[in-house]
Amino acid sequence: MADNLTTQELLPGVADIEAAAERLRDVAVRTPLLEFPALNERTRARVLVKAETLQRTGSFKFRGAYNAIAQAPGRPVVAYSSGNHAQGVAAAAQILGVPATIIMPADAPRMKLENTRSYGAEVIAYDRYREVREAIGARIAEEQGAVLIKPYDAPATIAGQGTCGLEIAAQAEAAGARLDVALVCCGGGGLIAGVSTALRDRMPGIAVHAVEPSGFDDTARSLAAGERQSVVPGATTICDALMASTPGELTFAINRRTLETGLVVSDDEVREAMRYAFRVLKLVVEPGGAVALAALLSRKLDLTGRTVAVVLSGGNVDPGTFARIIAPT
Amino acid sequence: MADNLTTQELLPGVADIEAAAERLRDVAVRTPLLEFPALNERTRARVLVKAETLQRTGSFKFRGAYNAIAQAPGRPVVAYSSGNHAQGVAAAAQILGVPATIIMPADAPRMKLENTRSYGAEVIAYDRYREVREAIGARIAEEQGAVLIKPYDAPATIAGQGTCGLEIAAQAEAAGARLDVALVCCGGGGLIAGVSTALRDRMPGIAVHAVEPSGFDDTARSLAAGERQSVVPGATTICDALMASTPGELTFAINRRTLETGLVVSDDEVREAMRYAFRVLKLVVEPGGAVALAALLSRKLDLTGRTVAVVLSGGNVDPGTFARIIAPT
Repeated sequence: MADNLTTQELLPGVADIEAAAERLRDVAVRTPLLEFPALNERTRARVLVKAETLQRTGSFKFRGAYNAIAQAPGRPVVAYSSGNHAQGVAAAAQILGVPATIIMPADAPRMKLENTRSYGAEVIAYDRYREVREAIGARIAEEQGAVLIKPYDAPATIAGQGTCGLEIAAQAEAAGARLDVALVCCGGGGLIAGVSTALRDRMPGIAVHAVEPSGFDDTARSLAAGERQSVVPGATTICDALMASTPGELTFAINRRTLETGLVVSDDEVREAMRYAFRVLKLVVEPGGAVALAALLSRKLDLTGRTVAVVLSGGNVDPGTFARIIAPT
Repeated sequence: MADNLTTQELLPGVADIEAAAERLRDVAVRTPLLEFPALNERTRARVLVKAETLQRTGSFKFRGAYNAIAQAPGRPVVAYSSGNHAQGVAAAAQILGVPATIIMPADAPRMKLENTRSYGAEVIAYDRYREVREAIGARIAEEQGAVLIKPYDAPATIAGQGTCGLEIAAQAEAAGARLDVALVCCGGGGLIAGVSTALRDRMPGIAVHAVEPSGFDDTARSLAAGERQSVVPGATTICDALMASTPGELTFAINRRTLETGLVVSDDEVREAMRYAFRVLKLVVEPGGAVALAALLSRKLDLTGRTVAVVLSGGNVDPGTFARIIAPT
């Protein structure tokens, strides 16, 4: 963060998201906004599903990573992540022709480790109980002159992730829909900060709600308190992608202005949403990617008669985990 | 079949498919034509994936069923099917407000039985080893004055299923793609008859190939022989949706003129395609719905540098079956 800029001055706006969309043109997938008669009937609402599961690398993270790396041309990059951000950075660096080093816990999900390597990144596995990933990252950044690509709390990341919101607005309009509500998952808050900025610009009056897993409802609590709150340590969830314990500084500075309340779903509600996505939508959704659908299906809000956008943010789930959830024995 | 019409006169053409598209407007889902950079890289081709898994009832069968039932307004309908046609007829009859009776084997996949009932159809379970479904159907048709809705060998069914092809052509054009090849699954041949008729009208010069599971390659053999051939009885396959043993009379009269060779895939190649769809495409595809993708991935044709449409025709697979395929123990 440049010393002479305040947080407010750093916050990305719609123009930054539009510039990101220009950079991502022909690189990111314009994922479809899907409508399912069966889902409409069940919810008695009109539901438009943004399938970011179909994005490059299987999640929205590619959008922010590419937008950030494209603005530091020619420089090697480094990132920490146990999951989707790792893959997004690795794939974006490969396309842009710069080396990527990703610091991942040795016990990260196997699919996420393998995919990250498959994009040509060097993966440094660390012992999350005995080593400090920030220290490893700082050493690599210094040795290589590498740029650190943050997963959410950076203007370029937020702006890139916000391109998902521009697409939702354009696709909803093309489908003749005026959105009343959007439900978006929230970990550190980058996706929803960008998406809510874009949606409120294009569809004023829309109510955007954050959805978090139980035990990691830091944004819900922070929105209620009006300032950043942390969750109590020690909670667990199957939503490995949404385990942030405190909202980002930049993301919350946006989200406190753009969001309505935060909604919270249980792991059982997430599993039920994954089963519904398998059985009715025929989509593979990872636990963290299914929280917004879970909030919809478990009726955290009364949405009867409303038009609702729901983001499915990712689909990177190990086969064994998915099998156990859809077909419990 | 009206007595005074020959087979040639009964064959549906592009005008019939366009009329079907008009009937299906606002009722069928215009399923997306998806592109995945990872799939393009793997195949060294440009691949456009028509996701009919996202259609009402989870397969393309709804298109033909609705088009047929809409042309017999107010009359009850009856159909035989162990699977996707059952659901398509039941859902279409529900929308059109006519009673549907579906004759299904008692040992059909549970998901398919439950879904068919969920659309309000009366399901008559029969013992496939001791009862003749045609006799049951004839009795019901007579008692109720019901119309029999055939799964593939009827002009209205073929025309309705062909609307999938009109969409592929329009969506490919919107994506700036000129299709060289289309790979389409083939059971009785209704989908591919309609789709090939539409595609060859809109994109002359396209090569359309049928894909069948090993042991049920009646269309491949028939195309090679120039006349309808049956397969040897007794074969088995995991592709429960593609177990026709002889091409339809009408469908083959079309397909002999519109298709190139037939391609044949093994059950192992189908399982591998389902795993790829889970892992990379994040789509749930049933065995019969995955044969065209299997032909692509196992390189039955050299498609390097070509632009290829691949139809994923259905996603109705029981959770236990899917779990065993993606995560074998």
